[in-house]
Amino acid sequence: MRAKLIESVPNISEGRRRNVIDAIAQAAQGEGRHVLDVDSDADHNRSVITIVGEPTAVAIGIDRLVEEAVARIDLTKHHGEHPRMGAVDVIPFIPVHNVSMKDCITLSRQVGKKIADKYKIPVYLYEESATNETRQNLATIRKGEFEGFFEKIKDPEWKPDFGTAKVHPTAGATAVGARQFLVAYNINLATADLITAKKIAAAIRGSSGGLPYVKALAFTLEERNIVQISMNLTNLKKTPILRVFEVVKNEAEHHGISVLDSEIVGMVPREALYAVASTVLRTEQFSRASVLEDRIEDALRNKH
Amino acid sequence: MRAKLIESVPNISEGRRRNVIDAIAQAAQGEGRHVLDVDSDADHNRSVITIVGEPTAVAIGIDRLVEEAVARIDLTKHHGEHPRMGAVDVIPFIPVHNVSMKDCITLSRQVGKKIADKYKIPVYLYEESATNETRQNLATIRKGEFEGFFEKIKDPEWKPDFGTAKVHPTAGATAVGARQFLVAYNINLATADLITAKKIAAAIRGSSGGLPYVKALAFTLEERNIVQISMNLTNLKKTPILRVFEVVKNEAEHHGISVLDSEIVGMVPREALYAVASTVLRTEQFSRASVLEDRIEDALRNKH
Repeated sequence: MRAKLIESVPNISEGRRRNVIDAIAQAAQGEGRHVLDVDSDADHNRSVITIVGEPTAVAIGIDRLVEEAVARIDLTKHHGEHPRMGAVDVIPFIPVHNVSMKDCITLSRQVGKKIADKYKIPVYLYEESATNETRQNLATIRKGEFEGFFEKIKDPEWKPDFGTAKVHPTAGATAVGARQFLVAYNINLATADLITAKKIAAAIRGSSGGLPYVKALAFTLEERNIVQISMNLTNLKKTPILRVFEVVKNEAEHHGISVLDSEIVGMVPREALYAVASTVLRTEQFSRASVLEDRIEDALRNKH
Repeated sequence: MRAKLIESVPNISEGRRRNVIDAIAQAAQGEGRHVLDVDSDADHNRSVITIVGEPTAVAIGIDRLVEEAVARIDLTKHHGEHPRMGAVDVIPFIPVHNVSMKDCITLSRQVGKKIADKYKIPVYLYEESATNETRQNLATIRKGEFEGFFEKIKDPEWKPDFGTAKVHPTAGATAVGARQFLVAYNINLATADLITAKKIAAAIRGSSGGLPYVKALAFTLEERNIVQISMNLTNLKKTPILRVFEVVKNEAEHHGISVLDSEIVGMVPREALYAVASTVLRTEQFSRASVLEDRIEDALRNKH
C-alpha cells in the first residue's frame, strides 16, 4: 500500500439495539474509508467500530458517525457494565501506513475541535494527544462517568480541551486522541485457578513489575472452566507479542500450569507475525523482501 | 490478489557473462508478468530467474527467454560446477494464487510441446508433470549431462516426452514440469565440524530417515568458519518450516551444538510465516482475517 492509511476505532455506548448500531456504523462508511469490523457487547452495552482509510476520509466518517450517535443515543437511559462518559465515548486515531504519530495527533485535534464546535460536546485529548500527563490515561479522564461529569467538569483541572465546561445533556463528553496500534491478546491457561491467574496477570502487567506496554487482567472463562490472561499490547515493536507469550508461559510453568492456547482479538499488524517467525527461526537477515507476496505486490506497484 | 498467479523459475546455463544473463532475463519481461529476481552463480555458471504473473503471460515470457538463451548459449563451450543438460536446463511452473497444480501441469505440457516444436529441443516432463516415476526426479533425468545425452537419448527408456530423440547441438535438452513452491532454507551451526553437520543433514533429510519433503546437504562456510545445513523444503503444508528448524535444532543439541541462525534464500510464501507464528503462539483460531493488512486488502478488493 502506497496510500496514507490510518485506523480509527470509535467506541459507542450502544451494544444492544442492532438497528441503532448498524445505522451508526453505516453512517461512517464512504469514499476512501472502510468499516472493517463492528464488535458489540450486550453486557457492556457498547460497540467497537473499526474504520480504516485515508486520514481525511476517516475524519469525515467519524464526523458522520458522531452525528448519528448523538441523534440516537441518550446516556440518561444507558446502562452497561463498561464505564462510559459519552454517546461516542472515545475516538482513537492510529497510524498504519505512511502516516506518523504526529499526523494522527494533528488529526485528533482537528476532529476534537469540530466535535466540540458542531455538536456542543466537551472533548478531552488523551494518550499521545494529551495536553498534560493526567489526561494521557483514558480511565482517569472517564472517572465519574457520564453521571458524575456534570460536577467534575466544573473543576478547573477538568476544563475540556475543546468546547465549554458544559456536559452535553444526552451525549456526555468524548475523549479523542492518537495512539499506537493496540493488540488485544488473550492467553488461556489449563487451570480454573483464578487466584494464580491473577498472580500471573500481575507478573506480566507493566504497572506491577512485568513488561512495559502490557495491560493485563485475569478472568474466568465459565464455558471452558479455565482462566484467561486478557491483555492489551500497546507497543509491539518494543514489547513484541512473542516475548509476552513466553513470559506468561514461564510464569504459568512456575505454578505448574500449562498454556492451552492464545487468541488475537480483532487484528494484528502483519509485521508483528513476521517478527514472531523470524525471531523463532533466528533469521537475522529477514525482511519483507523474503516474502513472495510482498515482492509481487512491490513489483506490481512499481510498474504503475 | 484476485488474479491467477503462477511462478516460473527457469535455470539457465550461464552464470558469468553479465550481458548474456541480462539479455535473457530481459527477454522474459512483458505485460502481465514480472521478473522478480535473477540469481547468478559464477562457480556453477548458472542463473536462476524468478518470474511471476498470470499463467498465459508467464508462458509467453518463457518462450521469449528460451529463444534468447538458445541464441546466446553454446553448451559445447560451457563449463561449471552444477550439473546441466540444456542451455535452459529446467523450467518449473509453480501455483501461487487461484491456480491448481493441475493447471500448472497442463501449462507445462503446452510449454514443453512448444519448445520441442519451435526450437527442436527434446523436452522431458518432470516432477508433478512426469509421465512415469523415473522421470519425477530431475537429477535422474539429467544424469550424464549435456555431453552424455547424445548417447542416452538413443535408449528407448529416455525417449523425450516432446520432440524427436535428437539432442539440440548447442542447447541440449530441457526439463519442464509443475511442482510445489520450493523454499531454499539454510540453518547455520555454531561449529566448524563438517562430519557432525553431515550427520545432522542425514537426520533431517527425508531420504535417510528424516522429514519428508526435505532435501539436505552439509557445507562449510569458509568465511564464517562454521557449517551450514542447506535444505530444500518442497511441501511447506505437510512439512512446515518450524518443524524442520526444530528437528535440526534438537539433532544439533544431541551433539552439543547450538543453532546460530537460519536464512531463507530467495522467497517464502506469506502463509508459511503466519503458520510459524500461529504454531508458536498456539493461536488455534488464527486466520488471515486476524491480520490487519489482509483485512484492509480484502476490503479494498471487495469495493471494486
